[in-house]
Amino acid sequence: MKVKYEELVDLFSTLLIKKGFSNEDAKEAGVIFAENTVSGVLSHGINRFPRVLKYIDDGDIKIGVKEEVVFSLPFFERWDCKMGLGPLFAKKGMTRAILLAKESGIGVVALKNNNHWMRGGYFAELASKEGLIGICWSNTTANMPPWGAKTARLGNNPLCIAVPVKDGSSFLLDMAISQYSYGKLETLRLKGENLPYPGGFDKNGKLTDVPSDIEESKRMLPIGYWKGSGLSIALDLIASVISGGNSVKEISDFTNEVALSQIMIVLDPMKLGIDNAEERAKEILSYVKSADTAEGFRGVSYPGESMNRTKDANMRDGVEVVDSIYLSLKELV
Amino acid sequence: MKVKYEELVDLFSTLLIKKGFSNEDAKEAGVIFAENTVSGVLSHGINRFPRVLKYIDDGDIKIGVKEEVVFSLPFFERWDCKMGLGPLFAKKGMTRAILLAKESGIGVVALKNNNHWMRGGYFAELASKEGLIGICWSNTTANMPPWGAKTARLGNNPLCIAVPVKDGSSFLLDMAISQYSYGKLETLRLKGENLPYPGGFDKNGKLTDVPSDIEESKRMLPIGYWKGSGLSIALDLIASVISGGNSVKEISDFTNEVALSQIMIVLDPMKLGIDNAEERAKEILSYVKSADTAEGFRGVSYPGESMNRTKDANMRDGVEVVDSIYLSLKELV
Repeated sequence: MKVKYEELVDLFSTLLIKKGFSNEDAKEAGVIFAENTVSGVLSHGINRFPRVLKYIDDGDIKIGVKEEVVFSLPFFERWDCKMGLGPLFAKKGMTRAILLAKESGIGVVALKNNNHWMRGGYFAELASKEGLIGICWSNTTANMPPWGAKTARLGNNPLCIAVPVKDGSSFLLDMAISQYSYGKLETLRLKGENLPYPGGFDKNGKLTDVPSDIEESKRMLPIGYWKGSGLSIALDLIASVISGGNSVKEISDFTNEVALSQIMIVLDPMKLGIDNAEERAKEILSYVKSADTAEGFRGVSYPGESMNRTKDANMRDGVEVVDSIYLSLKELV
Repeated sequence: MKVKYEELVDLFSTLLIKKGFSNEDAKEAGVIFAENTVSGVLSHGINRFPRVLKYIDDGDIKIGVKEEVVFSLPFFERWDCKMGLGPLFAKKGMTRAILLAKESGIGVVALKNNNHWMRGGYFAELASKEGLIGICWSNTTANMPPWGAKTARLGNNPLCIAVPVKDGSSFLLDMAISQYSYGKLETLRLKGENLPYPGGFDKNGKLTDVPSDIEESKRMLPIGYWKGSGLSIALDLIASVISGGNSVKEISDFTNEVALSQIMIVLDPMKLGIDNAEERAKEILSYVKSADTAEGFRGVSYPGESMNRTKDANMRDGVEVVDSIYLSLKELV
């Protein structure tokens, strides 16, 4: 069935208020879950919402907490987010980094003890919508073996980079360091399809594109094999060290995936003396798109390019949701 | 044949002095080329040196130029490197970013019109050797198609991240965004071997691990397929915009790969209120290494872990070089 954006905001907000969140926090978070849903990322919108409610019930997402600024410099702050609702504090943190960057040219906010932020690209794009460059990443629980290993020790640590483009749009990279997500494996398995490219090793150590073989072995592939393995470690090192928060190691000891470490970095090109940032981005992206399309592909696009179209269409027509998930949430109202 | 580190420094320095570099610049650059060589990265040490001499002869690497600081803030500087010798200005830029970070907690230096820096990890490690986190990347000429395309529009834009570890070593990620380099393809082709994993598409659009098929199609694979394609664009966007320098597009119009844009970022954990950075890094890396080794692998190591052993051995015993390259350089003295 199709559901309107406003209905989703209302649904999520109402359920959060019922759990005890303030009207303001519930509305703010409801907007983010609804935005993610209409942006086409249902896995970090409506489809994830039942798990968020469970984490609240488990006491792993705390209600009514406030961030504590544990350290600050003119362009840097470190916050303890006290295990609040992830998207709320990720948005607050990025909003603060944007302000710091507008004042100083660069703004960095490091968050410890924040919960899952859902879709990191949402926060990076807050910066690019204001003409700034936004970079953010989060660590996660261990869900991927390091290169050469068969037991999970790496997070898929999503990395997001948003750059403003002249026509008002954004370049928006939002990528986990695993080649695929477990959600993607499940979706394809249920459809009886294989992955487009190998996504992990099977239990015998052979690369495979069969989702169930990877679900069985739990040997997800990092992007670029040994390279993504190294990048995942680097992102965890910086996030954990600079936030003073939990690393993938500690997070993996918790029952639920909670109390993560996140980094928000914003650069203000104007404040750094650059007055043609958006034109330059446009030129660079036009050049990328000028490549000859390969056989079997429908053209060359850059990250984030199609998301705005998806979002516009879903805002207009409503977004197709999984009936059972939507209806079960409606029943909770 | 095996050559000692000191002989290499002397050889490179002497040849640069003969080309017209000052004694000081020649020594500084000679040390970097020699360090890269004994670190086991001959492709960006002695093996690349003949091409550097050619670029100097072509007038594409300028002799005796000084960087111009075109913009500065307390923790940010933008330099025009005037097409000088790449490693010299990359080292100067990183050294400056280290100083800025020690003063302010964060230091960023953006370089435009710098030439190829050879091995980026050298510069990132300058920071980690002082207990700081070093991040740097460079754009390059277009050498890889974006995802969905068959003509090159992306650089392999090497990204380097160094983090200090308690025992005095460094975590050191130094990765191009292509899965393999053309140098690696050539090396394996000459040995009659295939790549360990697919590294590109052949001219018919099929993934292949045959080096010559990729050399023919020029369809190198980015790490993680569409993900690395996006990451490469992101790195070029930020480097070009913030440095005010050339993007992959402009660089690709030049005959030689020159006048690149590079970003150096340094974080000083102590100045950011963190006093256990190296201990935390050690814990995280120990956790990664505690994973069970997969069949067919010799254990789990992290980026940079083995480089120090290689370097120590080569410093002691001399480094094995390609006779013809070494001897042809000796003839130029």
